Amino acid sequence: MESETRSEIIDATNRALCRHGYAELTIQQIADESSLTTAAIHYHFDTKEALLNVFLDDLIERFESKLASEATDPRERLIAFLDAVFTPSDPEGDGFPVAIMELKAQAPFHDIYRERFLDLDDVMREAVAAIVVDGIDEGHFVQTDPDEVARLVTTTINGAHTRNVALGEPLDETRHHLRNTLEIHLGWELGSGVST
Amino acid sequence: MESETRSEIIDATNRALCRHGYAELTIQQIADESSLTTAAIHYHFDTKEALLNVFLDDLIERFESKLASEATDPRERLIAFLDAVFTPSDPEGDGFPVAIMELKAQAPFHDIYRERFLDLDDVMREAVAAIVVDGIDEGHFVQTDPDEVARLVTTTINGAHTRNVALGEPLDETRHHLRNTLEIHLGWELGSGVST
Repeated sequence: MESETRSEIIDATNRALCRHGYAELTIQQIADESSLTTAAIHYHFDTKEALLNVFLDDLIERFESKLASEATDPRERLIAFLDAVFTPSDPEGDGFPVAIMELKAQAPFHDIYRERFLDLDDVMREAVAAIVVDGIDEGHFVQTDPDEVARLVTTTINGAHTRNVALGEPLDETRHHLRNTLEIHLGWELGSGVST
Repeated sequence: MESETRSEIIDATNRALCRHGYAELTIQQIADESSLTTAAIHYHFDTKEALLNVFLDDLIERFESKLASEATDPRERLIAFLDAVFTPSDPEGDGFPVAIMELKAQAPFHDIYRERFLDLDDVMREAVAAIVVDGIDEGHFVQTDPDEVARLVTTTINGAHTRNVALGEPLDETRHHLRNTLEIHLGWELGSGVST
């Protein structure tokens, strides 16, 4: 498949998901959001599951590139990580977090979705653990278990997204509390001593 | 409505939700799980939304009675709280956490569900904050912000349930990590110095 077609289908899937949610999503709705016919989309993707798999893969790739910060100071890298996680990719797309939550609820019935969410979790945990390791090595953070901190951060992020959808709680609120928690765990006041 | 009928409808809703999920749920499926006809259920509940509202209300009531611990020591009460939260109500009912997650994803479209989830969140946060206040007063925990700890706990619980459904991560795993986090925040080793 040409990368242009792949991009167009992924973007159309994103828009259709935000508009209609996962449960109601049809190939027709995706076609309506693109210049392609349903036949052309079916040619590339046999099933809705195969299409959503590529969509989630793309989501992970985009998240990874958001994480690629230019900062070298572990404290700045941690702030950049929180920025990447807590800034909605598409502020207009109110339907997006809801669609992702619907997909998560489908994970027990679709191994392929579960694998993608596990991949995303690995990416996040490895990123945080690497930052914490460097921060300890460079003497910015107290001695602590980097994997434990990484797990705390990802679980809190999972909770933040659930609270955002279910309770309508702004992501900024959880970000603020996660920051306080990290300060206690890392023995360092986030945002102090670095030029952000 | 007689309380017996109410209970029967709520139990049948629980079973139907676990079996079919929220999206597919019909009054017929609930009737199939009970001795009542669809007409009898419709007589008491105009809409699926009204029925789910009562179902969620009952869930909160049952959760509150699970929280009513006989312990008086704040450290024991905190352990009892974690027991209540991390022990699945129905170990057989694999479908239950998925159905709750589907309902959370519906909250942006149903104010009534959102209100119930906000109620449940209040119950949890108030319970934790009260325990932390007493623990500080009695000198078991270090000086800390009880509301901040309560928010950390509820956000982690939200994250735990999401991880359980989306990633298949056992609830016990998050419980273990939350415990470590609480030890850092409260300056107290959970399970030490009390008779549990």
